Amino acid sequence: MPYAKARPDRMLNIQANPANNEAAESGRFGARILDLIHRLAQFSELPEGLMCTYFSPAHRAVAAQLRDWMQFAGLDAWIDPVGNVVGHYDGTPGAAKTLLIGSHYDTVANAGHFDGRLGIVTALAVVEHLQRTGRRLPFHLDVIAFSEEEGVRFSAPYLGSGAIAGCFDESALARRDTNNVSLATVLRKDGVDLAAIQALARAPQTLRGYLEVHIEQGPVLLQRGLPVGVVTSIAGSARFRVTIEGAAGHAGTVPMPLRRDAAAAAAEIVLAVERRCSTVPNLVGTVGQIVVPHGLINVIAGTCELSLDVRSSDDATRDAAIADIRAEIDRIAGRRRVSAAVKLLSRHRAVPCAPAMQAALARAVGSAGVEPFYLPSGAGHDAEMFAGVTDIGMLFVRCGNGGISHSPLETVTAEDADLAARVLLDVLVNLD
Amino acid sequence: MPYAKARPDRMLNIQANPANNEAAESGRFGARILDLIHRLAQFSELPEGLMCTYFSPAHRAVAAQLRDWMQFAGLDAWIDPVGNVVGHYDGTPGAAKTLLIGSHYDTVANAGHFDGRLGIVTALAVVEHLQRTGRRLPFHLDVIAFSEEEGVRFSAPYLGSGAIAGCFDESALARRDTNNVSLATVLRKDGVDLAAIQALARAPQTLRGYLEVHIEQGPVLLQRGLPVGVVTSIAGSARFRVTIEGAAGHAGTVPMPLRRDAAAAAAEIVLAVERRCSTVPNLVGTVGQIVVPHGLINVIAGTCELSLDVRSSDDATRDAAIADIRAEIDRIAGRRRVSAAVKLLSRHRAVPCAPAMQAALARAVGSAGVEPFYLPSGAGHDAEMFAGVTDIGMLFVRCGNGGISHSPLETVTAEDADLAARVLLDVLVNLD
Repeated sequence: MPYAKARPDRMLNIQANPANNEAAESGRFGARILDLIHRLAQFSELPEGLMCTYFSPAHRAVAAQLRDWMQFAGLDAWIDPVGNVVGHYDGTPGAAKTLLIGSHYDTVANAGHFDGRLGIVTALAVVEHLQRTGRRLPFHLDVIAFSEEEGVRFSAPYLGSGAIAGCFDESALARRDTNNVSLATVLRKDGVDLAAIQALARAPQTLRGYLEVHIEQGPVLLQRGLPVGVVTSIAGSARFRVTIEGAAGHAGTVPMPLRRDAAAAAAEIVLAVERRCSTVPNLVGTVGQIVVPHGLINVIAGTCELSLDVRSSDDATRDAAIADIRAEIDRIAGRRRVSAAVKLLSRHRAVPCAPAMQAALARAVGSAGVEPFYLPSGAGHDAEMFAGVTDIGMLFVRCGNGGISHSPLETVTAEDADLAARVLLDVLVNLD
Repeated sequence: MPYAKARPDRMLNIQANPANNEAAESGRFGARILDLIHRLAQFSELPEGLMCTYFSPAHRAVAAQLRDWMQFAGLDAWIDPVGNVVGHYDGTPGAAKTLLIGSHYDTVANAGHFDGRLGIVTALAVVEHLQRTGRRLPFHLDVIAFSEEEGVRFSAPYLGSGAIAGCFDESALARRDTNNVSLATVLRKDGVDLAAIQALARAPQTLRGYLEVHIEQGPVLLQRGLPVGVVTSIAGSARFRVTIEGAAGHAGTVPMPLRRDAAAAAAEIVLAVERRCSTVPNLVGTVGQIVVPHGLINVIAGTCELSLDVRSSDDATRDAAIADIRAEIDRIAGRRRVSAAVKLLSRHRAVPCAPAMQAALARAVGSAGVEPFYLPSGAGHDAEMFAGVTDIGMLFVRCGNGGISHSPLETVTAEDADLAARVLLDVLVNLD
């Protein structure tokens, strides 16, 4: 295994804190949530900073800890074959369907503490409250901590939620980590095969819906001064690689009008992407990679490569932008006498959140005294896996520090976490 | 030594060809020049293509070959301690000063055949003609094949011409090649020390001037349909590294107006450089390197680095452009809320060619039936070393294939080479 063991001393003293439970019970969820979040972050593959990738020792320690907390809260809890931690809370007698509340506990490298885990421990804090107050709902609740969403170890995201949603990506089994160990090998060591994974899929007719609380990972709520927001959809994305071929030349000897500069053409494309994607709300376009391969300070760029990522909550909006960008790339290339090859790398459709779930969340947000604000998610989330399976709903929580995520600077305040928990509790109690 | 040996079979049959000497003598220099050029290119460090870096076996073989040709032409010829091949042709009785005619025989990797060597063999062909026709000049002639101009092996250019001009860069002695062998070590093996190099410097009062014929390495003459051109100056250059720091962010979650995208800022800078440098003739600006370090397709660029090379035959023109570009970088950074650090890497003043030498060359070009056309050199040349030491003059020869240089596609026609030789001969005969 390529992973550093979590230090044993970090595994001590990781148990429910009665003082914090008391705090949760009295409605002060925020402190409880932050306490659990930061205790989970002690399990890491890194000596400094948080990294918790699929089936690392730190990852298995987090799973065990979450199961223990769920059991301590009175849930029937287990770790399933793909590493999801499931805590079941029975509904009222005669309840038939199950509402899922989930998010993921794996992380990127040098991660923030909140991405994924905020949703898990918020659900846990709310169910702790239900249990302690003896409240039963007209549906069962399954709090699920998904084992894998980021796709770090095997370049295969959504392994945990995909299994539960019945859309586990079988091709992921052959993928290998940086130590050349395949996912199939890792699962086989635990006695898990494809049939065991497929057996995890929930039948759609058994589900009441899927809810997820997640840190926004962007600055929109922060800019608007809002603690939470209702997600309307999860953006579809299309990714491309653009390769521009011009003519290399001596930086001193080729006059400007005679140049066929691949870097200058790329620069025009970067700005064209930015310009086009700035015209429409809910549309973003990003050139995150740009390079002149083997470029030299005194040689005109003969080749320049760039990446392109275009997303929108509306597929037609995204596709129109892509068409315009491609046409503009052709115009730029033609005018500059360079060639531009545009290669599609991936394309995903946008996933809408269920109107009923949006309405339920918005009503609860309003009841908490906060203006209900709707926003799309530009990032992908476990909720995507359940679109088409059951009604999905997502609540975003304000991300501090300018909206930074996938970074140790990622932050959520106790107040905002508290509000998110109260909104979630309100939705659960009033959904049916 | 890190260099491949030149194949012995390539060293055979490398001697002066009487038929070509006859051709040169009758005024048809072009065929002779191209023959010598292509025979020199047989000595290479590469199995395919030309590479001849400082003191490689191929480089030493070229030096020996040039010395032999010079001696065969009746010159007093030797290889000096830094590897320059010098061929001395006595002037008329009483001649006191010496006119130098030179260029370099080292090459870049996968080089063209003409860069540097065209000037050497053109001078050789002309002196062959003087010798055979018994013509003496009122000054001595030294044809010098400089051993090092490109700076490939030790990242130290102008080692050969610098020694003769009395400005050998002593700091180069400590520089090491990719095998970690220092220049000092290489020279010591040949019994050469700094004093021996310093002794090569010519006293300015002994010099009549310096002339260099060189392939243009750009498309200007080709575009104008002219075989040769008179160089007005060797451009000054300034090189910078620009580092832009914005804010990394999730490509899906940060709305366009809230971004501080370092790649987009860099793109604006690239286009600002291009725009500013296109406004003035004899000014060029190049961003040959651009990269988002550790960039990811789904992450907004937090950092972007680019290189900047600005050149002009006129220092004031270059400096004004640099000032405008720096101001524009600041405006772009301010507007986009990113920081931009601009670090000066090197700065060289423009070197003018002596008006008298320009006039002498232009007169001879006109006498050959060609419109005298003046152009600056964007690239650096050995001639630079002699500015301030003696009057310098340069003649550019048209570069084929769109002006490509530092490439196997680099080409000069026999007709153009012939004309260059006739112009050089005319200048020599009529200079005083």
